[in-house]
Amino acid sequence: MATIRDVARKAGVSVATVSRALNDKGYVHEDTRKAINEAIKELNYKPNEVARSLYKKKSRLIGLLLPDIRNPFFPELARGVEDIMQESGYRLIIGNADEKPEKENDYIQTFIQNNVIGIISASHTEKKHYKHLTCPVVFLDRTSEPFPSVFADGYSGGKMAVREIIRRGSKRITLLRGPIEVKTAQDRFKGALDELCRANVDFNVMTMASFAYHDASKCAKEIFEKFPDTDGVIASNDIAAAAILHEAIRKGKLIPNDLQIIGFDDIPLSGLLFPPLSTIKQPAYEMGREAAKLLIKLINNEPIQNQMIQMPVTFIERQTTRKVEENG
Amino acid sequence: MATIRDVARKAGVSVATVSRALNDKGYVHEDTRKAINEAIKELNYKPNEVARSLYKKKSRLIGLLLPDIRNPFFPELARGVEDIMQESGYRLIIGNADEKPEKENDYIQTFIQNNVIGIISASHTEKKHYKHLTCPVVFLDRTSEPFPSVFADGYSGGKMAVREIIRRGSKRITLLRGPIEVKTAQDRFKGALDELCRANVDFNVMTMASFAYHDASKCAKEIFEKFPDTDGVIASNDIAAAAILHEAIRKGKLIPNDLQIIGFDDIPLSGLLFPPLSTIKQPAYEMGREAAKLLIKLINNEPIQNQMIQMPVTFIERQTTRKVEENG
Repeated sequence: MATIRDVARKAGVSVATVSRALNDKGYVHEDTRKAINEAIKELNYKPNEVARSLYKKKSRLIGLLLPDIRNPFFPELARGVEDIMQESGYRLIIGNADEKPEKENDYIQTFIQNNVIGIISASHTEKKHYKHLTCPVVFLDRTSEPFPSVFADGYSGGKMAVREIIRRGSKRITLLRGPIEVKTAQDRFKGALDELCRANVDFNVMTMASFAYHDASKCAKEIFEKFPDTDGVIASNDIAAAAILHEAIRKGKLIPNDLQIIGFDDIPLSGLLFPPLSTIKQPAYEMGREAAKLLIKLINNEPIQNQMIQMPVTFIERQTTRKVEENG
Repeated sequence: MATIRDVARKAGVSVATVSRALNDKGYVHEDTRKAINEAIKELNYKPNEVARSLYKKKSRLIGLLLPDIRNPFFPELARGVEDIMQESGYRLIIGNADEKPEKENDYIQTFIQNNVIGIISASHTEKKHYKHLTCPVVFLDRTSEPFPSVFADGYSGGKMAVREIIRRGSKRITLLRGPIEVKTAQDRFKGALDELCRANVDFNVMTMASFAYHDASKCAKEIFEKFPDTDGVIASNDIAAAAILHEAIRKGKLIPNDLQIIGFDDIPLSGLLFPPLSTIKQPAYEMGREAAKLLIKLINNEPIQNQMIQMPVTFIERQTTRKVEENG
């Protein structure tokens, strides 16, 4: 592979001049720059990013911290981040923190040791991990003042789910509450709770230990034991909704006539469930893109108009809710 | 943050000595080493990985190339790789190549520019991209002689799916063929085809353009138009199986009585579909772990007993196939 020395020799200049030209530091004559660029092209020279990173004190690496890539919501976020970063020539180091403070901190330390120029975190267990960082940080699907953040309007989403299930006829609603430590799950829970309190319906609340599949399945069984007359479930996410749908059909319930279900997220498989799941959609891929754009602006010291970007949620009507014409 | 200079001052030695100790190069007296380690601990000094990487010509970074993290099979692979790498102190740069040669090559170049010490690739569009690499490469869920590889026994999986669906009573089988360019999809296709040819049943073959959701849905509609008397579908993966299951139920077919379906992969949601999907399981998470272990051995020049690791597949009996007692 060609080295910086080969480029210097071919262009008839010193290595220091090539280095100045590559790093945009100090004066390089226009003709010299041209000769260097031609030599680079001809020799197919690839500058070593690590050396550049040390010299410029800047890399092209971004740290992306996720809770768990296996939860199908996060690959959408990650792909949105990556597509924008790739277009702009940045690369991602990815870590899964599993909502564990030590793992989160461990990844943040490695990001720093690898000279990342920015961090996007969809994991937030402890504020102190982010406090003393010198590179910009954007939270994604999480908020933590005063850090910039991209998140969906979960509170409105929770209200929306309740309004939709009530106007479609549910009267005894079970509201699933996501894990206490996940703030976005609590936002949608609070929105739903406020709306339920305003409405004239009975309701139960059931808290999930985690968003993992096995917890969702366990929770689904419990609902029908504890609250057998439930006729509407507002699930804390689509995985939980899928587990409840599954259990309800196993018990011989007709969906949506005996039981309506509304999920949250709109993960790719929600439309492939049977019946296809009605849900509150978070624009995950778009959220990832917005977070990446915001971080790039921060890295480049560009002016930021809004550093708390709240993305709208929408009700996706499929077949686990009744048609409004029939009941509304 | 503490620097190497602070460590040297505290330990009462030169910066060069600290550097020798940190990088295990050259002689450092035992007592000196002790004093340095104490100073590092007290000052909470974190060596800069980028500087170390330049000095030692070695980083702790691994490149992981995937086709698309949004396909729910790949997060499992990625998580397996990451968990082993994390235990061993390595970090992942991740890229999605979308089965596109330019994108694949672009990521490989960035990996090199960031001094990765190894690459795991679950994307393989062109052999030439990997030919001249100086760091070790392990293929995952792909094979490419003479490179080391970890992959599932797709050929046996295809045979297994056909045997299971036939002994459960299907007589007019539709076999879905995955995208031509994905070698692992072709292995399972060939296995199924060989077994179908040996058996005394009618069958049709239908090729999918991609593993994407919308292609799977389109394909599902076509099957029931073109081959309305199909009583068994061997799907090319679980996403395709979910789409077919969905379409079959929409058309009022009883599963498994009118139609049996067997998927491939066993992605986490397969058990949450209704009815839960019978499928051929690839041990994705374990495959990721094995690939990571193999790469670490290669990086450390440890002896390798087997550099083509074929992982076994298993039939997961759920409810889209009949019980054998009833029909066997």
